[in-house]
Amino acid sequence: MFKRAAAQAATRIRAPPCARGFSVSALRLANRAVVYSSPGDPTSVLSVLTYPDLPPPSPSSLNVRFICSPVNPADINVVEGIYPAKPVHTDELAQGHKLSDAVYLGGNEGLAEITEVGAGVEGFAKGDWVVMAGQQLGTWSSARSLKAADVIKVSKTVSRVNGSTLTVNPPTAYNMLHDFVDLQEGDWVLQNGANSAVGQMVIQIAAQRGFKTLNFVRNREDLETLKTQLKTLGATEVFTYDDLKERSLRDRVKQLTSGKQIQLFLNCVGGDATTQMTKLLGADAHIVSYGAMSKRPLTLPTSLFIFKNLKSHGFWQTRWYAQKTRQEREELMQKLVAMKLKEPEHEIVTIPAGDSDEQATKRVRGIIESLAQGQYGKKVLLSIEQPT
Amino acid sequence: MFKRAAAQAATRIRAPPCARGFSVSALRLANRAVVYSSPGDPTSVLSVLTYPDLPPPSPSSLNVRFICSPVNPADINVVEGIYPAKPVHTDELAQGHKLSDAVYLGGNEGLAEITEVGAGVEGFAKGDWVVMAGQQLGTWSSARSLKAADVIKVSKTVSRVNGSTLTVNPPTAYNMLHDFVDLQEGDWVLQNGANSAVGQMVIQIAAQRGFKTLNFVRNREDLETLKTQLKTLGATEVFTYDDLKERSLRDRVKQLTSGKQIQLFLNCVGGDATTQMTKLLGADAHIVSYGAMSKRPLTLPTSLFIFKNLKSHGFWQTRWYAQKTRQEREELMQKLVAMKLKEPEHEIVTIPAGDSDEQATKRVRGIIESLAQGQYGKKVLLSIEQPT
Repeated sequence: MFKRAAAQAATRIRAPPCARGFSVSALRLANRAVVYSSPGDPTSVLSVLTYPDLPPPSPSSLNVRFICSPVNPADINVVEGIYPAKPVHTDELAQGHKLSDAVYLGGNEGLAEITEVGAGVEGFAKGDWVVMAGQQLGTWSSARSLKAADVIKVSKTVSRVNGSTLTVNPPTAYNMLHDFVDLQEGDWVLQNGANSAVGQMVIQIAAQRGFKTLNFVRNREDLETLKTQLKTLGATEVFTYDDLKERSLRDRVKQLTSGKQIQLFLNCVGGDATTQMTKLLGADAHIVSYGAMSKRPLTLPTSLFIFKNLKSHGFWQTRWYAQKTRQEREELMQKLVAMKLKEPEHEIVTIPAGDSDEQATKRVRGIIESLAQGQYGKKVLLSIEQPT
Repeated sequence: MFKRAAAQAATRIRAPPCARGFSVSALRLANRAVVYSSPGDPTSVLSVLTYPDLPPPSPSSLNVRFICSPVNPADINVVEGIYPAKPVHTDELAQGHKLSDAVYLGGNEGLAEITEVGAGVEGFAKGDWVVMAGQQLGTWSSARSLKAADVIKVSKTVSRVNGSTLTVNPPTAYNMLHDFVDLQEGDWVLQNGANSAVGQMVIQIAAQRGFKTLNFVRNREDLETLKTQLKTLGATEVFTYDDLKERSLRDRVKQLTSGKQIQLFLNCVGGDATTQMTKLLGADAHIVSYGAMSKRPLTLPTSLFIFKNLKSHGFWQTRWYAQKTRQEREELMQKLVAMKLKEPEHEIVTIPAGDSDEQATKRVRGIIESLAQGQYGKKVLLSIEQPT
């Protein structure tokens, strides 16, 4: 699919390495997107493609300009073709201007500002901020034309960072805390990967709701610093997986919880430590898994299910969106904005207007490579400027 | 606790190896029970104890004579002290006649005939047949005095074998088929250990309800005979765990089910084969575990929970009884009797009236030993005659 010679022949268009360009020339090339022709290693397949100005939105649609769009781990898996959610595949980026090859659009989450409202769209105005209500809408773009049904308006009181990271991690944390166990103020929640992006949201949301959190993290040199950070967020107690080897741990936890049974365990790790952690649960507890950072499966003694009545579920925010009404989705976004959650640690990486597509492509692939090597250690948010 | 010398001194009483006898002598020694002084290896700790005639039942109670009482695998675990349900511990077998040491009573399940009805008991008459509504009531006895609330009347149309095995395996199968997924006629159920006692009940009950069963068993020399037996019971299809290695299996299953998604998986095995079997499940399926015959835990990829929305539960009939009303329990027993299920393969072992307690003890321990060595290959039902 990579036809550099053909691409270079399209002189008026900045040639994307993965698509041959447009069937018309002499357009105002005003927008950009991170695209790929076929799934694969993102450091090889992702390209930045410059494309014409969006035409006015069609009925029931809106044109938006993206403010910030995060690069989430799942986004990488989508590009690799190993994630169950599938990206947009299109040969039209600016309506009516066909690409010679269809491309996939990267990016699932983002904050955007409405630039133009189509006929028959109610409840939205130019200048409003929106987040995505639909999945995999190609948010790694400078602009997009989207169905009004696919976006949700958010208050402009939200920060750019919180707005652009509002639809995946915070609702995952919120829903896992509410959809499985009817927790009451003072009830305990057990979680591992507690310093992950979702884990930190769990801590904050639980604290706001009056739930207590028993958090587990990996041991590390600066453990006390991390414990302090998590406690500042609202964590009730922080342990390490090494503590699971201590025979006294169950007694310590029993003392801490005043013997109150723990009914909810949020798991994003898997493997041995997770199995060990289930011993801290009370009867009839629920383990809800949303990740497997250890890359190990979930191994649980059958007796836990039979005699302690443990129930094991998974949580996937994408499924939640698919199953809920628009009103429920809007209400949740409003609740999360109102919680004024602490911004995740982040770096905003700008794709500058003056970059050529080759330069921009190199920059995007470099970001992915650094992420893969764990060089950021924080969330990367793309800010894709309109090309000049 | 084993005080043979003291026991031998109690001349008028047949000395049980585990209890010193009664505090009164010159009683009519009319009953027998399998008892133990402390939990442990059943081939060492179980003893047969002869004890006096039951007095007339106290108010709200009944006297019963046991017809047949199975030795279930869980009963052995109770004697060993490794099962969550705890046995009766008493120093009174015939009310008012205290044992010098308290003993545990063996046996959880059984069919009994009412011999005498206490004051204030309604709905029961002498000669009625009853099964146990309560747990761990000491059914390895010739007779017992029980609270009317602890028994459920069953129709005398039930066979002795089906009546004595009515409260554990058939309701486990029935409830697992009904409590997790709202199966409709033509829906499929996946199960392993399909030739186990519960597995065979699942096959029969599913067939009567119009559900189709996809059954897995271990490979063996007489596999075709077993397949025919299970299909005669109502199994729709039978595979072996070896078939899981065939890449074509998923396609075969898809063809068999006409692509209908399998929503319920009943598991009593665990380990690798069980993990493999989950690949045959559809989205939103439930895996319900009621045993772990492989002695391996349940290991499931986290992605199954997150993306396929698999839910993993356990089922324990003891918990079901604890959570349900008497009316629900009675209705279930009536339904199961009306289903006229095929009797489990069994051998009725009589503890003859003429045995001394030593002889009877030896016999009981021998049964347990043969069971442990897998020499029966079928269910053993105790029939404990009144000593002469």
